[in-house]
Amino acid sequence: MDLSRAAAATLDAADELAPFRDRFVIADDALLYLDGNSLGRLPRETPAALARVVEEQWGRGLVGSWADWIGRATEVGDVIGTGVLGARPGEVLVSDSTSVDLYKLLVAGADARPGRDVLVCCADDFPTDRYLVAGAAAARGMEVREIPADIDEGLDLDVLAAALDERVAVVVLSAVAYRSGALPDLAAVTRLVHDAGALVLWDLSHAAGAVPVELDAVGADLAVGCTYKYLNGGPGAPAFLYVRRELQDELRQPIWGWFGQRDQFAMGPAYDPAPGIERFGVGTPPVLATAAVEVGARLVAEAGIEALAAKGRALTDLVVALADEHLAPHGVVLASPRDAARRGSHVSLAHPQAWQITQALVDRGVVPDFRTPDRVRLGCAPLYTRFVDVWDAMDRFRAVLAEGAHEAYPTERSRVT
Amino acid sequence: MDLSRAAAATLDAADELAPFRDRFVIADDALLYLDGNSLGRLPRETPAALARVVEEQWGRGLVGSWADWIGRATEVGDVIGTGVLGARPGEVLVSDSTSVDLYKLLVAGADARPGRDVLVCCADDFPTDRYLVAGAAAARGMEVREIPADIDEGLDLDVLAAALDERVAVVVLSAVAYRSGALPDLAAVTRLVHDAGALVLWDLSHAAGAVPVELDAVGADLAVGCTYKYLNGGPGAPAFLYVRRELQDELRQPIWGWFGQRDQFAMGPAYDPAPGIERFGVGTPPVLATAAVEVGARLVAEAGIEALAAKGRALTDLVVALADEHLAPHGVVLASPRDAARRGSHVSLAHPQAWQITQALVDRGVVPDFRTPDRVRLGCAPLYTRFVDVWDAMDRFRAVLAEGAHEAYPTERSRVT
Repeated sequence: MDLSRAAAATLDAADELAPFRDRFVIADDALLYLDGNSLGRLPRETPAALARVVEEQWGRGLVGSWADWIGRATEVGDVIGTGVLGARPGEVLVSDSTSVDLYKLLVAGADARPGRDVLVCCADDFPTDRYLVAGAAAARGMEVREIPADIDEGLDLDVLAAALDERVAVVVLSAVAYRSGALPDLAAVTRLVHDAGALVLWDLSHAAGAVPVELDAVGADLAVGCTYKYLNGGPGAPAFLYVRRELQDELRQPIWGWFGQRDQFAMGPAYDPAPGIERFGVGTPPVLATAAVEVGARLVAEAGIEALAAKGRALTDLVVALADEHLAPHGVVLASPRDAARRGSHVSLAHPQAWQITQALVDRGVVPDFRTPDRVRLGCAPLYTRFVDVWDAMDRFRAVLAEGAHEAYPTERSRVT
Repeated sequence: MDLSRAAAATLDAADELAPFRDRFVIADDALLYLDGNSLGRLPRETPAALARVVEEQWGRGLVGSWADWIGRATEVGDVIGTGVLGARPGEVLVSDSTSVDLYKLLVAGADARPGRDVLVCCADDFPTDRYLVAGAAAARGMEVREIPADIDEGLDLDVLAAALDERVAVVVLSAVAYRSGALPDLAAVTRLVHDAGALVLWDLSHAAGAVPVELDAVGADLAVGCTYKYLNGGPGAPAFLYVRRELQDELRQPIWGWFGQRDQFAMGPAYDPAPGIERFGVGTPPVLATAAVEVGARLVAEAGIEALAAKGRALTDLVVALADEHLAPHGVVLASPRDAARRGSHVSLAHPQAWQITQALVDRGVVPDFRTPDRVRLGCAPLYTRFVDVWDAMDRFRAVLAEGAHEAYPTERSRVT
């Protein structure tokens, strides 16, 4: 691989997705933003879409706008489901936060496997997933099997297989590991879990918009995910949940709110869950925030998930090659799968002073994430990240290490990393 | 009472809150909007506040803005808590939907009363509250005692007292009944519930911003409420939850998400709930929507809840007087407490053809709500509703009945009422 900046510029010139960068607000063109997997950039269309909902629908239409709003959670769910996740219409709902959605589907799944008393998760799952599994298990008197995973290479299918038996009700796993980006074989995992008679619940937070997950094709049961990362829905945007069509009427989620109720304005005496995906709703849907989610998700669908994933692999391949060439001599070690086909659109680099390096990079106009224990995580959101951005960021990373600039930064961490 | 329009105009001229109407977007000054208790109007400041968060903080500040956003749920919680609810700082959190918050506090409360196996709610509580109680009880093997209440006059304290014993863990009640507006004596209810050793969980959705609830003074334990009604936070805006300071460290909510975790970016192995009100958070907080909540809540706090409640009583008194005078001859019956001190800022009027009347009113520029079984609900949000609005709306109501205009409308209901 030609590791010159000119070669990176050539890749940009040939990039068919390059025009999508202009669809986003780039307030500071010199900022090298490699954190779109934490918070996606603001699409240019979003302020106008929000203004339309706020000023026309809320301000002018007032309560009458509910005739339109009432369907938004499923309509935008379908944009995500059919446009990004390989789901069928009516399988995805925009609702609550990723954490609340995971709780709902986890409990619904466990209830659908009576007599089974084990929940499986992975020690390297994102904390909220592990905490939620622990909480649900504690409340239900179930046991948690937290299977180990290499924090760089991800889940080993043999380890998973060994943890599965007739006691397992639900298996919670990340489609793309939040730290390393490791991407398991979703179809193979699903087969293993189904062979054990259990349900699989995917956390797609770092996968949706980065890699194809093909939920229908792989036979997935349940999934949740975040819309403010690669889907560019804005900070704290409502999450999405997926329930395979064939499972919907069998499952009941535990939070019996009126937006999961059949014909909720009849305000009937007893909870009677709506048919289909709507039964997984709870409270009044977040109308304003959902408008922002729609804009971001439509951009991803328009670009096409296969093209995005291909560019993501190329971008992260460039990170890996430059790290090998320029950072390894300074003690930086790749902390993600080396094979691009086995990872999402971000990679992590390990260094004992990762937190200090992260601070030094931010001061030099590069935005990565620090992740425990000693990782600098570099997200290459393919919709708007250029190859030269990666090259320039890695060049500054090299300079920080060469100059020892990171040594001047505190080792104590800030509250938000 | 002088029931002329001129008298209503005189009341407006003397109304010290009248200038607040100009703080809201009034897209159509001729529209008589008596539904601010369903969806509050858009404050004029909200679009700019949203644009600031969207364009400056998200678009320009990107992920670095989390240093500011991380505290918003508690800061805006305090605006609501100290400015509107009579709570102390650190007792209110903006979080999730009202339904999800009610679920969290209901389960947390039940867990804090081990050995007690009964949840009490009221047959006239809003459906989502009753459904949530039923769901939590079913999951925990608890019993529900649904106490009856007069749907016009509200809860009878003797009926409540008779339902309380040493088996009761949590009592869920509405501070203002969603249909009739009936307002129980919060302090007296709290004493009764505490005497039985149980916890009281108030749904403040129709109370917050309409009447003083003085949570600290009445000794309330737990509360949740809606921000898109009298708090003008926008459609589907995130809700708030209140947990009395002395109870916070004793309670644990069931949805163990990372935003309830102590030092969540340490991403530790086990869930360890944060101290204080933050432990009742779950997922990443809804940043954009919370900015809109703040604007609306600050307006209520600025106006002052006592002044708002006084105007609400005067407005609804005018509704009642005009209904007695002009609508009763057409078969309309008051379906709310007649004593203004015993109701919130809305009243309901019963008529067998209430749904047809509602449709006729909407076509004549009056926006009420239909509520089952046969109620026209008229909300008089005191921040922007004028006495002449009430007078004009009631005049059109009278005309509809006098002309029989409602007879032309279908009896079958639309999905959203």
